[in-house]
Amino acid sequence: MVAPLMDVSYAEVAAQRVMDRADQLAAISESAGQLTRVYLSVQHLRANQLVAGWMAQTGMTTWQDAVGNICGRYEGKQEGAKAILLGSHLDTVRNAGRYDGMLGVLCALEVVAYLHQHNLQLEQAIEIVGFGDEEGTRFGITLLGSRGLTGTWPGHWLNCEDASGVSVAQAMVLAGLDPSRIANAERPKTDFSAYLELHIEQGPVLEEEDLALGVVTAINGACRLNCSFTGHAGHAGTVPMALRKDALAAAAEWMTLIEATTRRYGPDEVATVGTLSCAPGAVNVIPGDVKLTLDIRSPHDESLERLLNQLLAEGEAIAARRGVQFSAEAYYAIPATPCDAKLQATLAQAVSDVQGRCLSLPSGAGHDAIAIAERWPSAMLFVRCEKGISHHPAEAVIESDVALAVQAFTQAVTKLAGE
Amino acid sequence: MVAPLMDVSYAEVAAQRVMDRADQLAAISESAGQLTRVYLSVQHLRANQLVAGWMAQTGMTTWQDAVGNICGRYEGKQEGAKAILLGSHLDTVRNAGRYDGMLGVLCALEVVAYLHQHNLQLEQAIEIVGFGDEEGTRFGITLLGSRGLTGTWPGHWLNCEDASGVSVAQAMVLAGLDPSRIANAERPKTDFSAYLELHIEQGPVLEEEDLALGVVTAINGACRLNCSFTGHAGHAGTVPMALRKDALAAAAEWMTLIEATTRRYGPDEVATVGTLSCAPGAVNVIPGDVKLTLDIRSPHDESLERLLNQLLAEGEAIAARRGVQFSAEAYYAIPATPCDAKLQATLAQAVSDVQGRCLSLPSGAGHDAIAIAERWPSAMLFVRCEKGISHHPAEAVIESDVALAVQAFTQAVTKLAGE
Repeated sequence: MVAPLMDVSYAEVAAQRVMDRADQLAAISESAGQLTRVYLSVQHLRANQLVAGWMAQTGMTTWQDAVGNICGRYEGKQEGAKAILLGSHLDTVRNAGRYDGMLGVLCALEVVAYLHQHNLQLEQAIEIVGFGDEEGTRFGITLLGSRGLTGTWPGHWLNCEDASGVSVAQAMVLAGLDPSRIANAERPKTDFSAYLELHIEQGPVLEEEDLALGVVTAINGACRLNCSFTGHAGHAGTVPMALRKDALAAAAEWMTLIEATTRRYGPDEVATVGTLSCAPGAVNVIPGDVKLTLDIRSPHDESLERLLNQLLAEGEAIAARRGVQFSAEAYYAIPATPCDAKLQATLAQAVSDVQGRCLSLPSGAGHDAIAIAERWPSAMLFVRCEKGISHHPAEAVIESDVALAVQAFTQAVTKLAGE
Repeated sequence: MVAPLMDVSYAEVAAQRVMDRADQLAAISESAGQLTRVYLSVQHLRANQLVAGWMAQTGMTTWQDAVGNICGRYEGKQEGAKAILLGSHLDTVRNAGRYDGMLGVLCALEVVAYLHQHNLQLEQAIEIVGFGDEEGTRFGITLLGSRGLTGTWPGHWLNCEDASGVSVAQAMVLAGLDPSRIANAERPKTDFSAYLELHIEQGPVLEEEDLALGVVTAINGACRLNCSFTGHAGHAGTVPMALRKDALAAAAEWMTLIEATTRRYGPDEVATVGTLSCAPGAVNVIPGDVKLTLDIRSPHDESLERLLNQLLAEGEAIAARRGVQFSAEAYYAIPATPCDAKLQATLAQAVSDVQGRCLSLPSGAGHDAIAIAERWPSAMLFVRCEKGISHHPAEAVIESDVALAVQAFTQAVTKLAGE
C-alpha cells in the first residue's frame, strides 16, 4: 500500500522537531555566537554523533563511512534491498545559516521517522547520508563527502591543506579515519535506485511566487571568466569625449548588454559582473584599464555556451568600435546537472498534492547532487527561504513550509520505494 | 613701430635655447632620475636663481617676491610704465614632465630676449613671473604663487602642512621668506594691463588637428561628485535576472548615459567616471553597493550646471526604475575662467600669422591664469604636446612647435605692449 498523505498535525510536529534539531546542530560550531562547522573538525564528529543518535531513534542502523559521512539505513521488506538515498550536507561556510544542507538531512530523518512510527517497511530500503563536506570551506575543494560515495576523489585531494597547513590526510588521521581506506566509502551503482536531496532554495523565486516548495529541473552549469578592457588613460579635463579610449566606458557599455542580452535570452540564464576595478583609478583621470569578472550560469550546457559566445562577441564588437582591447579568459567551468525526469515528476506530484501546484526551477547554486548524479538518478526538492538569503546568519525558513516539505518528501519517497 | 614677424632662423635658435633651458631646469629635482620640484624647497630656490640669471641676461631687473615667485621687469619707454605680465609656474608634480609650467616662463624669456637683442623698448613694460606653486604638490593647496600677486591667500594657508608636518609658514622661514610679509607680494590692479600665459595643451586636440598652437577660450569650470548606487547583494546563481537589484548594472547603465549625453551635449563638455568600486566584490555575488566618482567640466558655468543636472536626473531615473538607491554629492567645484576676448583675438591673429590658421579650444586643466584673471585681463596660448601626455616623464614638445610659439608669442606681446 502507498502511505496516505501524512496528516497535517503529524507534519506540524515533525516540522517543530526539524526546527529544534536545526538549532541543536547550529550550536555545534567552532566559534561562539556564529555557526562555522568544517570537514573533519571536532564539530563535524560531534554533529555526526548527534545525527546518528536521531537515526537510531527511527530504527536505522548507522555508521560513519571512510571519508567521514554519517550514514543510516532503514531496511526494506527484504534485507539488503536496493535503497532510495536521501541526504544533504552537515558542513557549513563560515558564519553560516543553519538550514543550508542540514534541512535536507533533518527532513530525510522525518521521512524515516514517519515510516518507523507507522511500522511501515517498503519494497526498497531508505538510506540517509549526512555528507561531511560540500562547501569546501576548510580545504578549498568541494563535494568531498559525495565524491566519497562515487569513489571519484582525485589523487591530489589527500595533500590539499587547510589554512594551518594541515593536509586532508593528516586531518583524517586526527579524526580517526584512515586515508588509505577512502575507497571503502564508494558505493556500487546497484546499491541505490535514486538520490533525493531536499534543500533551501538559496534564492528568491519561491518567495516571489508565494510558494513553499519547488522542484529542481537541473543544477546550473557555470562558467567564470576574468575579463579586461584596455584603452588609454588620460586627463579627465583635457581629452575631449570624442578622442577618448575610456576603458570604463567600454566596460559599462558591455555590462549593460550583458544584462539586457541575458534577460532577453531566457528566464533560467543568469550572468553577473561581480567585481570590477579600474586603473589608474583617480577622480580626474580617464580609466585606461578595467578588469572585471563574468559569472554565467544555465541549466543547459548548450544554452550557456551560446549565451557566453554572444556576450563575448558583444564585448569584442564594443572594443573594436571604440579602438580599445578586450580580453576574456575562462578559469572555471562546470557543466549543468539535469535532474532525473521520472524523479522530478514524482516530486512534482507530491508537491502539487500538498500545495496545490508545483513550480519547477533550476538551481543556481551547486549541491551534493552534482556528484551523486554522475552515478545515480537524482533530483531535488527546494524549500523557500526568507528573501533568498543564504550563507549568512539571517538564513531562515518558515516552520509551516517545513511541514509541507516533510509531507511532500515523505509522499514522494514512499511512492518511489513502493509498498 | 610694430616689430616685424620674427625671422625663422632667429626663432629656431630661440627654440633650441628653450629646449636646452627646459633640460637645465629639469635637472633641478629632489630625486635623481625623475623630476620633482616643490614649493619652498631648496630646488625651488635654485630654479629661481637660474631663471633670474636668464632674466638678467635679457636686460631685466629681477627680484624674488614675498611668496617666493621669481620676477623680472623689462622696462618700457617710460620708467614705471604699466606692464604686460607673462608667466607660468616653475613647480612640478611628482615624477613630472619638464614643460608643464616651465615652457611658459622660458618662452616669455625669449620674447624679452628678442626685444632686448633688437634694442626695442615698447610703450608698456614687460614683466615675467615664474610662479613658485601652481600644482599644490607639497601642501595640497594650489595656486599659492599667483594668489600671492592677487593678495588672495586665505588666512589658514600658512598653517597647512606638508607630509612631514612642516607648515607653509615654517617652510617660508626655512626658505628665507617672512610669512608676516606675504601681503607684500600683492600687485595693484594698475600695475598690469594684461596677463598672457603660454602652456602645453596637456591634451590631444592640437595633435589631432595637426596644429602647433591654439588659443584658449576659457579654463573649464569643474565639479567633482561622489556618487553611489545601493541595491541588494545576492547569489549570482540563484537570483534570476528579473528579480535583481544589481547596483553595478545600474551604475553601468548610468555610465553609458553619462558618456552618450555628454557627447551629444557639445564638443567642449567632458564628463568622466574615474573611479568605481563595488561591494561585496566577489565573482559569484551580485554587487549590492557601487561607489563611483564623476568629474564634469565645461568652459561655461551654465552649461556645466545644465549638463550636471541632466546627468543626475538620469541617475535618479535609472535608480527609480530599478528600485535601487542613487546618491550624488559634490565635494569640489570651481567656476569657469573665460579668457579676455581682446587678448584672445590678438593671440589668434599672431597664431594665424605663424601657422596659417588658428584653433580656439577650452583648457581642461587648471592654470595660474585662474587666479590672475580675477584681477587682470588674461589669456593663454597652447602649444601641442605629444599624445596629450602631461604630468608624466614622457611629456614632450616638438622644437619646431616651440619656434612657432616664440614667434607668435613675441608678435602678440609686442602688439599689445605697443611701439
